[in-house]
Amino acid sequence: MLMKERRNIAILGSTGSIGRQTLDIMTEYPTLFNPWLLTANSSADLLIEQARKHLPAYVVIAKENLYEKVRDALSDLPICVHSGSEAISQLVTSNEVDTVVTAMVGYSGLESTIAAINANKDIALANKETLVVAGQLITELLKHSHSALYPVDSEHGAFYQCLVGERREDVTKLILTASGGPFRNTPIEQLPYMTAADALKHPNWDMGAKITIDSATMMNKGFEMLEAKWLFGIDHDRIEIVVHPQSIVHSMVEFCDGSVKAQLGLPDMHLPIRYALGLPGKRLVTDSHKMTIDDYCNLTFERPDFEKFPLLTAAYTAARQGGNLACIMNAANEVAVAAFLHDRIHFTQIHDIVAKTMAGVPFIASPSYDDYVATNNEARSYAESLIQ
Amino acid sequence: MLMKERRNIAILGSTGSIGRQTLDIMTEYPTLFNPWLLTANSSADLLIEQARKHLPAYVVIAKENLYEKVRDALSDLPICVHSGSEAISQLVTSNEVDTVVTAMVGYSGLESTIAAINANKDIALANKETLVVAGQLITELLKHSHSALYPVDSEHGAFYQCLVGERREDVTKLILTASGGPFRNTPIEQLPYMTAADALKHPNWDMGAKITIDSATMMNKGFEMLEAKWLFGIDHDRIEIVVHPQSIVHSMVEFCDGSVKAQLGLPDMHLPIRYALGLPGKRLVTDSHKMTIDDYCNLTFERPDFEKFPLLTAAYTAARQGGNLACIMNAANEVAVAAFLHDRIHFTQIHDIVAKTMAGVPFIASPSYDDYVATNNEARSYAESLIQ
Repeated sequence: MLMKERRNIAILGSTGSIGRQTLDIMTEYPTLFNPWLLTANSSADLLIEQARKHLPAYVVIAKENLYEKVRDALSDLPICVHSGSEAISQLVTSNEVDTVVTAMVGYSGLESTIAAINANKDIALANKETLVVAGQLITELLKHSHSALYPVDSEHGAFYQCLVGERREDVTKLILTASGGPFRNTPIEQLPYMTAADALKHPNWDMGAKITIDSATMMNKGFEMLEAKWLFGIDHDRIEIVVHPQSIVHSMVEFCDGSVKAQLGLPDMHLPIRYALGLPGKRLVTDSHKMTIDDYCNLTFERPDFEKFPLLTAAYTAARQGGNLACIMNAANEVAVAAFLHDRIHFTQIHDIVAKTMAGVPFIASPSYDDYVATNNEARSYAESLIQ
Repeated sequence: MLMKERRNIAILGSTGSIGRQTLDIMTEYPTLFNPWLLTANSSADLLIEQARKHLPAYVVIAKENLYEKVRDALSDLPICVHSGSEAISQLVTSNEVDTVVTAMVGYSGLESTIAAINANKDIALANKETLVVAGQLITELLKHSHSALYPVDSEHGAFYQCLVGERREDVTKLILTASGGPFRNTPIEQLPYMTAADALKHPNWDMGAKITIDSATMMNKGFEMLEAKWLFGIDHDRIEIVVHPQSIVHSMVEFCDGSVKAQLGLPDMHLPIRYALGLPGKRLVTDSHKMTIDDYCNLTFERPDFEKFPLLTAAYTAARQGGNLACIMNAANEVAVAAFLHDRIHFTQIHDIVAKTMAGVPFIASPSYDDYVATNNEARSYAESLIQ
């Protein structure tokens, strides 16, 4: 049997930070990958520009009112243009698709990820909220699918690399590193006065606005703890968060014999994206992004401040209680972060809204997909009602 | 077929630092390991004590004039006592032996290691000089043997762990960490005045005298570079030495995609011994030696000073030229270190003697075993002649 020369890649959320960097990798390895499908929520102009450059077979713009704009702009090219989230979920199941990169923001990634799993597609998972919201459901679906889930997050890519060739039963602890975000050294009493502009100044990583705010509250690290729990089947009480301001050690694994393995690299998302796209088993050769001793000459580690960053505690609570609680937490967080970005609430109100919504929306121990959809809607409404 | 309950372990050099710690592991896992053979060079009292406690089937005291003392002291126990290095080389080939731990000091480890390889025994290699002196020959012998060579050195155990599950062709660099030894912060002009007592104060590791002096000159790190070259088939120009004073990161591997993996742990030799004895594929569970964030809160890395530690350059020269040059270097170093420990020479004369011996003893490009034996003798005589 001949090996297919190039893998067809569906990039869901190609106009976001991860999506753009995934397209960089497509350009870097043109003999390995073909960007077959590009999708965007509302960034029509960039989607058009990407499509003209990369010539995918399909593009989808989720917002239906932008459909004609995109279609007309690409009418001289052999590219099929669709719109709506339904089209995305259908296209990822195509026989033509080899790997789906899920790089959408937030809850919106869930439906198409489930479609991809049901169609036995390999998934490079950048949309961590999928596992945060519905880890239990996704884990169940994966048992009956030939899909492999490859993490794109730098931390989970690090866990994956440290676990290669190891027996899962030998793992005693995952040590999840966190930069600490822009407010690591900000006194707790000043946090209420921090603006969106302050919060968007991330010290190490160049990321989208949503995840940068989640980094400032450390909600992002709570999400990653939940993501790790589901990806690697390790309980939350064996996942330790450690603040590492240099973002060079991307995470570590402790084994039963006291040995710890770590994965290091420059804080650049091209690295974990490249690793995820090479899986299973193939590292993609590059001369860029090599680390020198000057990059890692001084590495520090400290305990996180749960009092200052109470969303960390919220995440552990959601992990311990399970059910739809993480879905509630995520929905309230999405609403609160959007409100903070629009200067509608103070920084510390993000946690207040999340905590009140987690307490106010009914708990469901074993939610179905429909329960997640209903919970997400209900939690969003509840959170919105808390914002004046 | 029934799995044998316990593996019979031959500990060559049981009275040295590694040998004693290997016996600790035997005591920790009595259902896994049986210390079948203990050997010592001249430490008869400790050998007797160990034999009375661990009840091996055989003990060998290498120095023949101590034979009667050991035999008489153990005459009430069912332990066979032999003497002489010939007896060691014969006993390691016994059908009863499963794994040979080579923990002797220096060149003396070569003969019995070769015997163990020819008898298809698995080897936990703590005697790095074996590979330093005769890496080319050992590598050739391993091709025709069922032996596996498992490193006991913490650095090489780290490489091994980082390489598990990875493709060898993906490796671009081994990053060998060094504590820097007791003279890392000593000005170069003060080195000639350093005494054996100064050099024996190693900041992190509790080791024997020979290796502690080798650590002070960084000859030990040069040896480890050569050991890594032969163990992992990586050329010297892809092995980088990095000074890491905390001795927490035991070494690192860089891959072709820019990713680096590291292995961390407390600076305690029980850890790499336990790992080596568990190979292949089994990590031995322990509650001791767990690292906490306080152990790794600040990790620093710096370039080594080749001017201050010229034996590093000597080791790279030996690696580049191959043949019997590393054997010459090792023999001269053994003689010079012994002379330094007896206050016969100054600290910086260790390098002078090694350099002059490397220049003075004839080079052989493809030495046989007999050539190594002759080279070792010749280099020792040459080095001795340089000492007044």
